Amino acid sequence: MNIYRYEQNPLITPADVQPYHEGFKVIGAFNAGVAEYNGETLLLLRVAEQPINDDPDTVLAPMYNSATGRIDLVELDRNDERYDFSDPRVVRDRSQSATFAYLTSISYIRIARSTDGRHFTIDSKPFIYPSNEQEVFGVEDPRVTKIGYDYYIYFSVVSPVGIGESMVSTKDFINVTHHGMIFSPDNKDVLIFPEKIGGKYYALHRPTMKSVGMPEIWIAESDNLLYWGNHKHLIGLREGMWDSGRIGGGVVPIRTERGWLELYHGATKEHRYCMGAILLDLENPAKVIARSASPVLEPDAPYEKEGFFGDVVFSCGAIVEGDTVKMYYGVADTSMACAELSMKEILDSLVYE
Amino acid sequence: MNIYRYEQNPLITPADVQPYHEGFKVIGAFNAGVAEYNGETLLLLRVAEQPINDDPDTVLAPMYNSATGRIDLVELDRNDERYDFSDPRVVRDRSQSATFAYLTSISYIRIARSTDGRHFTIDSKPFIYPSNEQEVFGVEDPRVTKIGYDYYIYFSVVSPVGIGESMVSTKDFINVTHHGMIFSPDNKDVLIFPEKIGGKYYALHRPTMKSVGMPEIWIAESDNLLYWGNHKHLIGLREGMWDSGRIGGGVVPIRTERGWLELYHGATKEHRYCMGAILLDLENPAKVIARSASPVLEPDAPYEKEGFFGDVVFSCGAIVEGDTVKMYYGVADTSMACAELSMKEILDSLVYE
Repeated sequence: MNIYRYEQNPLITPADVQPYHEGFKVIGAFNAGVAEYNGETLLLLRVAEQPINDDPDTVLAPMYNSATGRIDLVELDRNDERYDFSDPRVVRDRSQSATFAYLTSISYIRIARSTDGRHFTIDSKPFIYPSNEQEVFGVEDPRVTKIGYDYYIYFSVVSPVGIGESMVSTKDFINVTHHGMIFSPDNKDVLIFPEKIGGKYYALHRPTMKSVGMPEIWIAESDNLLYWGNHKHLIGLREGMWDSGRIGGGVVPIRTERGWLELYHGATKEHRYCMGAILLDLENPAKVIARSASPVLEPDAPYEKEGFFGDVVFSCGAIVEGDTVKMYYGVADTSMACAELSMKEILDSLVYE
Repeated sequence: MNIYRYEQNPLITPADVQPYHEGFKVIGAFNAGVAEYNGETLLLLRVAEQPINDDPDTVLAPMYNSATGRIDLVELDRNDERYDFSDPRVVRDRSQSATFAYLTSISYIRIARSTDGRHFTIDSKPFIYPSNEQEVFGVEDPRVTKIGYDYYIYFSVVSPVGIGESMVSTKDFINVTHHGMIFSPDNKDVLIFPEKIGGKYYALHRPTMKSVGMPEIWIAESDNLLYWGNHKHLIGLREGMWDSGRIGGGVVPIRTERGWLELYHGATKEHRYCMGAILLDLENPAKVIARSASPVLEPDAPYEKEGFFGDVVFSCGAIVEGDTVKMYYGVADTSMACAELSMKEILDSLVYE
């Protein structure tokens, strides 16, 4: 596979983003949704901000307060044995089975704009900011599906009651309509197909199970993009491979002559995140035609291997021009990069069933 | 609270049910959905059957094989330290965080019919039986909502890929239309309201989270009963109370003058299951008006305290006649019972917000 990583990579780093909150620093500008609007490439950045804290004995956990519209800080004692601080991203309560009790940063969505797809100017204010009790820990990992003149933007919403997926829509990236939570917890990595198929909308989604089952990719259908059902398990983990630990949809599905191409992320149990591909039947996207044996893209460049959480490439969107797939992707939970791949090479690399 | 438990309790026990599978025994006839049809009371029993096994050193786990339509048995060695056999209901894989890897019985739905609500005749064959890969470990805990002439029956579907909620509909309890999975994993305890409210259908549901959040009650809306969205967290656990461990919807919501009455189950962290109540706004069921401080019904009778999994009362349906609520409920994950309560007493017992 020929991969052309832009010379300008990383295209956007935390240093390029002014913090929105006083007393905070930007620690991530990553996992951006992608849209083409008005002749420009828009990256809908996930911006993660962390309270500046000079006290090595405490951890400050930011939480959006829906009553005041402001961020409260919860101060935790690093020596408090009730908590596990070993993962820099989260604070875990040892008495609970939950993956986390607090996050160490709060994320929201901010737009970066470019005319050449390589040099970006970042809006000074958030575009989508926490606005209700389901978003207390922030909003993360947006994807954008354009249908007609409407851009549907959906993202993980994180709060003490769970992680779900909510959606807004816009025609101009200024005025936004909120549509509420479209997939209930535990769920993330939703990808809405860009057109109806056999009279139905379709979406990939990634439930996370506690009782039984693994973090794998499911597919659902809808009449109106707001209400979803007929859920089916689509693809699973593969023991011993690059996608043995967890998988989830990545890029908005791309219509090709051979089928719907989905560029998805897969991680090992050691949390090394790669991008791979599946091909779904054009008429019935619940049918898998082919799948990557090896990753399409894996962490290799220094900015992919090192950062807030290293060894991660994680794409939420791409732009297709002829045979060229310009895949924008978050690196190391820190910055944004872009690589160009050949659609034909991706399709030829798949193992057909 | 005056509670009139029927003298005939338990109304149906496993001994009353002929096993459907050769070489199996019935270990549970419980957690039945309730319908009134053709002048009769129908209990849609969850029947749990377990392979008869005289070998104390092995555990047999039944699994529906969607290719053959038959039940396969997985033989597990009780001395195999990879597994935890301490819960009689499940086999846990110690290497996984999942609650279970296998079940020790397989459940399906069978109809019991009565003209007086106390004496039941049980159909000789299953009514709803596993039929696809999402139902490999069985179908459980049905509820029935009648809308017009249609009975919508929805139930947990359990398989290695997760526990979700699927739905069928019928007009005659003979011919059944399958509608697929309406809530994706991890989810159960769905309760569909019996009429549209402000132009929308509503349902309660109970996601189970791994990342963050507790097993609590959520509410969703729909246009067509098949696709669901606008998910909102409705009520949570209460530390130190009878519903501190897990909660989930129980009885199909009942329209009263004061609001929608939902009889729900709550368990302590020690797995003692009681029934309690919430009252929801008639026009906006996402608004909670009142809630039980104490249980409406708690395990007390011997058949409620002892059985396959004791100290459980778990209702999936009731019949309302004037002020009388005839609440049918599963006891000790084993049998069925019924108790009559006064609607007025229940409503008066609630703590209004």
